[in-house]
Amino acid sequence: MDKIADANREALRRMLAGDPVFTTVVPASQVISNLSEGMILHAGPPIEWSRMCGPMRGAVCGVAVFEGWAPDLETAATMAAAGKFRFEPNHHHGAVGPMTGLTTLSQPVMVVENRAFGNQAYCTINEGLGKVMRFGGNDAEVRSRLHWLKDVLGPALGRAVDAAGGVPLKALVARGLTMGDEMHQRNVGCSGLTLRALAGALARTSTQQTALGEALDFIGGNDQFFLNLAMAMGKAIMDPVRDIEHSTIVTAMSRNGIEFGIRVSATGDTWVTAPVEVPQGF
Amino acid sequence: MDKIADANREALRRMLAGDPVFTTVVPASQVISNLSEGMILHAGPPIEWSRMCGPMRGAVCGVAVFEGWAPDLETAATMAAAGKFRFEPNHHHGAVGPMTGLTTLSQPVMVVENRAFGNQAYCTINEGLGKVMRFGGNDAEVRSRLHWLKDVLGPALGRAVDAAGGVPLKALVARGLTMGDEMHQRNVGCSGLTLRALAGALARTSTQQTALGEALDFIGGNDQFFLNLAMAMGKAIMDPVRDIEHSTIVTAMSRNGIEFGIRVSATGDTWVTAPVEVPQGF
Repeated sequence: MDKIADANREALRRMLAGDPVFTTVVPASQVISNLSEGMILHAGPPIEWSRMCGPMRGAVCGVAVFEGWAPDLETAATMAAAGKFRFEPNHHHGAVGPMTGLTTLSQPVMVVENRAFGNQAYCTINEGLGKVMRFGGNDAEVRSRLHWLKDVLGPALGRAVDAAGGVPLKALVARGLTMGDEMHQRNVGCSGLTLRALAGALARTSTQQTALGEALDFIGGNDQFFLNLAMAMGKAIMDPVRDIEHSTIVTAMSRNGIEFGIRVSATGDTWVTAPVEVPQGF
Repeated sequence: MDKIADANREALRRMLAGDPVFTTVVPASQVISNLSEGMILHAGPPIEWSRMCGPMRGAVCGVAVFEGWAPDLETAATMAAAGKFRFEPNHHHGAVGPMTGLTTLSQPVMVVENRAFGNQAYCTINEGLGKVMRFGGNDAEVRSRLHWLKDVLGPALGRAVDAAGGVPLKALVARGLTMGDEMHQRNVGCSGLTLRALAGALARTSTQQTALGEALDFIGGNDQFFLNLAMAMGKAIMDPVRDIEHSTIVTAMSRNGIEFGIRVSATGDTWVTAPVEVPQGF
C-alpha cells in the first residue's frame, strides 16, 4: 500500500505542477507525426468500422469527403467498409477530441504545451452547437464549416496566439471555474476569457477584415469554444502522469460510442474497457 | 399601509418590466440637452467646489484641461474656485458615473434605453483600473486616455453597437450574475459577454486596423468594462420608478465624496443626504 500511496503522491505532484499553455494552431499533419492520407484518429479506445455506432460512421464519411479521399458520402462508406481507411485512437497520437472526435491531417489543431514537462497535446477547433461533425453530422453545411475552420479560422487563430506569445491556461481556467465553468457543458466563462485574451491579437494579425469579423463572431457565438482547449489542456497535464510504477491514478477516460475506456498510470498504454450502455432516466 | 404596499407593488412591477438595451455610444453633448461649455456633471447629490474632496477636485481640474477650458491644472483649479464651472449632478441629466463620475460635453457616453418605458440613461466608458479620472487622476496619461476614448474607442464602439442593432442587457446580465458578477467590483463575466457580443461588429465596422486592435485589447483587458454599462442600465431601469405616490422604494443611491444621497420614489427628485464617514476596519 505504501508503494501505491507514494506512486499516487508523485502522480498528484505532476498534475499540480502542470503548466499548460495554448501555444499555437497548426494543421494536424504538422505536429502529429505518422498522420497520413486515409488515416482517421477518433475518440476513445481502438475501434474498427464494423463495430462503430451511427454517429461515428457518419463523421467518418463526412471527414473522408472533407479530406478529398472520397467523392461523396456513399462512396466513403463503401471505402470504409472495404478497409480503405486506417482508424487509430487520438490518444495514441497525443491528440484528443470531443464526441466522435475525429482528427485528420488537414484539420487545424490547437496545441497546448505543458511547459513544466515539455509535452504537447492537440485538439481540433470546436465547431459550435447544432449540426456538427463531432455528433456525426456530415452534410455540405458541416463540411463547409470544416473548410472554413481549416482555411480561415485555424490560420487566423494560429497567427493571433503566436503574436500573443501563447495563452497560459492555468490561471485562466482557475478564474473560469470561479465563474461556473466545469470544462464540459459549461465553458462560457473560459470562452469569454480566451476571446478577451486574443481579440486584439486577432485584429492585429488579421489579413482580411470580413474574415476577421467572421472569426470574432464565431468565437463570440460559441459557448463551447473553450471545450476543445480544455480537453487538450487535460491531456497535456495527464500525459506526464502516465507510466508511474504502482500508481492507480486514471490518466485517460474516453469512449468511442461503443466502449468506454480508461488508462491507469501503472499500466501505461493499456486500455481497460467496458460496454457503453444507454442511460436510464434523464 | 395598503397605499404604500400598492405603490411599492407598482414600483416592483416597473422594475421587473424593465427592458434595458445598450443602443449606441455618442458624445454626451448629443444626448444630454443643456450640457454646455464649462458645465461638469458629477456623481452624487449636488455639491459645489468649496466642499469637494481632493479626488473630485483633481478630476474636475483634469476634465477642464481635457475639454480645453483651462490650459493647465493650476489654472483649472483657480477657475473652479472662481466659479467659472457649473456643477450639477449626473442624476439631474439622465446620467450616472462611477466614483467622481464626471460627465462633460465631449466625452462619449454609452446609451442604455429602457425599451419598456422609452427612457434612456447615459454613462461614460470605463477607463480601466489604475490611474484614472474617476479616482481623481488628472495627469497627461489620464487625459491622453480620455482623448483616446473620445476619438477612437467611443466612435468605434458606437459604430459596432449600431451595426449590431443594440445589445439587450437583461439576459446578458442574468447570465453574468450566474457567473459571479455582482455589477460593482466583479464584472468580468458581463465584460466578456459584452465583448463576445460586439467583437465581430467592431471588426466589421472598423476603419483602421491598429485602432481596432487597441480597442479590442482595451475592452479585453478591462475587468471593469461592464461596470459603467451596469450603472446606466440600473438608472434606465429605476428612472421609470420615480414619482409613484406613496412608494418608499429607493430609486437612486449616489455619493459625491462628502455626502451620500438617496432619492425615494414618492418624494421624486428630492435628495435625502447624510455625511460620508471614513469606514472603520478593512
